[in-house]
Amino acid sequence: MRVIILNTGTELLLGDEQDAHLAFIAREIFPLGLRITERRTVPDGEAIRDTVAELFSRAEILFVTGGLGPTTDDITREIVADVVGLEMYQDPQLLTSLRRRLAARRIKWTSRIARQADVPAGAQILPNENGSASGLYLKANINPRIPSPHLFLLPGPPRELQPMFRASVMPFLRSFVQVSGSIEQRLYKIACMGESTVEEAIGEKVLAVPGIELGYCARPGEVDVRIIGKSDAVSRAEAIIKTQLGPSIFSGTEESLEEVIVKLLTARHETLGVAESCTGGLLANRITNVPGASKVFVAGYVCYANQAKSDMLDVDPKLIEKHGAVSEPVARALAEHARVCARSTFALATTGIAGPTGGSPEKPVGTVYIALAGPGEIVAKKLFFPSDRETFKQLAVQAAFDLLRRNIIGT
Amino acid sequence: MRVIILNTGTELLLGDEQDAHLAFIAREIFPLGLRITERRTVPDGEAIRDTVAELFSRAEILFVTGGLGPTTDDITREIVADVVGLEMYQDPQLLTSLRRRLAARRIKWTSRIARQADVPAGAQILPNENGSASGLYLKANINPRIPSPHLFLLPGPPRELQPMFRASVMPFLRSFVQVSGSIEQRLYKIACMGESTVEEAIGEKVLAVPGIELGYCARPGEVDVRIIGKSDAVSRAEAIIKTQLGPSIFSGTEESLEEVIVKLLTARHETLGVAESCTGGLLANRITNVPGASKVFVAGYVCYANQAKSDMLDVDPKLIEKHGAVSEPVARALAEHARVCARSTFALATTGIAGPTGGSPEKPVGTVYIALAGPGEIVAKKLFFPSDRETFKQLAVQAAFDLLRRNIIGT
Repeated sequence: MRVIILNTGTELLLGDEQDAHLAFIAREIFPLGLRITERRTVPDGEAIRDTVAELFSRAEILFVTGGLGPTTDDITREIVADVVGLEMYQDPQLLTSLRRRLAARRIKWTSRIARQADVPAGAQILPNENGSASGLYLKANINPRIPSPHLFLLPGPPRELQPMFRASVMPFLRSFVQVSGSIEQRLYKIACMGESTVEEAIGEKVLAVPGIELGYCARPGEVDVRIIGKSDAVSRAEAIIKTQLGPSIFSGTEESLEEVIVKLLTARHETLGVAESCTGGLLANRITNVPGASKVFVAGYVCYANQAKSDMLDVDPKLIEKHGAVSEPVARALAEHARVCARSTFALATTGIAGPTGGSPEKPVGTVYIALAGPGEIVAKKLFFPSDRETFKQLAVQAAFDLLRRNIIGT
Repeated sequence: MRVIILNTGTELLLGDEQDAHLAFIAREIFPLGLRITERRTVPDGEAIRDTVAELFSRAEILFVTGGLGPTTDDITREIVADVVGLEMYQDPQLLTSLRRRLAARRIKWTSRIARQADVPAGAQILPNENGSASGLYLKANINPRIPSPHLFLLPGPPRELQPMFRASVMPFLRSFVQVSGSIEQRLYKIACMGESTVEEAIGEKVLAVPGIELGYCARPGEVDVRIIGKSDAVSRAEAIIKTQLGPSIFSGTEESLEEVIVKLLTARHETLGVAESCTGGLLANRITNVPGASKVFVAGYVCYANQAKSDMLDVDPKLIEKHGAVSEPVARALAEHARVCARSTFALATTGIAGPTGGSPEKPVGTVYIALAGPGEIVAKKLFFPSDRETFKQLAVQAAFDLLRRNIIGT
């Protein structure tokens, strides 16, 4: 089915607000075999009218988001009723529940708020548990004289749209969507390999499987490979991907590298400390984003200044003087001492030059050493990530996490 | 002018990837008097062809993002050349610079990468400083037989697109866009105030200024207020905003709170250390994202486990036992000891319950204490941010940074 999202809102096109609806709706409807075939974003006002009218001939399911609020620029309801050729009426039940809602919140009643109780004749109301703007569902061709798709009008704020979508939109979709059930999707997350290297390893072989769709998505230090197809094609493609990429695949779900690490360490009752110079807290921050991180993460030493490396982790100032703070011996010392100080099973360390300044001919911006101390030998790696500061930090963190992951699983 | 963005990428419609281009481009082109009038998102493949062809009659400037990479699903170049009716040729200079780029990064050369040197005849190349996919500019009606808008093909990754846009796209836009010069835009960033509180303070008064457009954008711990209008209207609105919000405004530019802090500390030759429990490294990470942070940031103690609070910062275990790790006395001790250990002018500390577990009736999930030690008295604050884990961390960090900022500027 042709499924189109129309996001309305001048603020979206001014770039003030990120649209979160596409990602949410795409994932919700995927199990029904539905995919979003197009997304449009238009400003408030007459552009909505033109676009809604145009999309009537293209969409079979149309989600319109935004413009259901009480303010003067919220005119989606009226425009849609007009295009579909339906009268508006004030829904008395909706009016009552609006009054009750505002009273409970001690918000003053205004005539503008009452507009939110106006609905096109025949529309079904989608209750909003988290705001005053109800959603609306107009079934396909609700006005026999005007062809139209299944039409859902949804509120703009994600925290209102999302529960409404799950509670009220999904049941309607299920009522008229034939779930084929045969199309499957798989995701493989690969650490520390470039997109072109990944493609070289799997691209041709996977695309030789009839009926498979293959997509890549590259992030700093990570490539997501997605295959879509019928069950048997997906199985064949999966076998190829697993053979070719093996332990470079760190996850077959949406799990992040840090989630994988927290899970691995938790299962083994092992712990982690980190010593960060160039990554400046990003290692610790990403690990502590994972719920339950406190079971495995003990301490992070963000020893940014050279003095701090000695003060916090007792790194010999002479070692720093001899090799420089950005060097393998210092990386090793940081990891080793962090492991002792944190009393943890493992410790990761990073030291490098994030830039934009601080590089030299022999240690240019982008140079980084990572080290891992654990029950076995200390291992260290020199890497080179010439990029902007934040990407550099992310690449270094991915490399450090992957070093730990591979060490734990023994590959 | 009708300015349209076409985002291409199956991954965008599957919801795997957020589109960051709209927001960036909207802000860049605003000073030229340009606004984005529509944004479309379509999957890779033939949908690109249909949409590009359709948009030729609607757009005067068309930005197409994505699909310029080396993989088989990157076919934007070819589709556009086809629709515009231009031959593709291999650009020898581009090929040479691609080879050089890959050699410098020690990445293996593959024939697929060479595809990135294919360009439509007459197109101008937009160099990519941060990736291998060059952008392309095709001037309006480049093929006299086929009407077309000014057409920019841009790479998908934001860190590649953004510098390219500033360096290479803007000069082309300036060459053919008449800048009216009379419309101005101002941005005010406000810390630690809710959107509705900000609106209550300024909304009615600002909107009473004729010809002013007012927009809000709420992020965790931050509200951006944007006004747009003619010069005199903007000046009047600005006076109102400054009177009403005063020192709550931390920036009148795109600067982040951490950039403001690094700037303030740098100017005063002062330094900062942080002790983080519940924020788990986010304070350090955000400060070290700022280029030049090493001038002011000394050390971060991510003392996640209770033991680490004593080991790293010598917090008396009895203090923790008596008051709990999440308490004002412990927050104060962390800040005080971090300042001593880091030998810094200031130290910030956080301790709280990020959740989803770990709460209790008297200290529910969302409870956080922040403290600041400096040359004056130690100050501490108890706050409550009942939200998801990452939002909680961001809110706590915003509150801590703002405490420091206000302390430095004395408000």
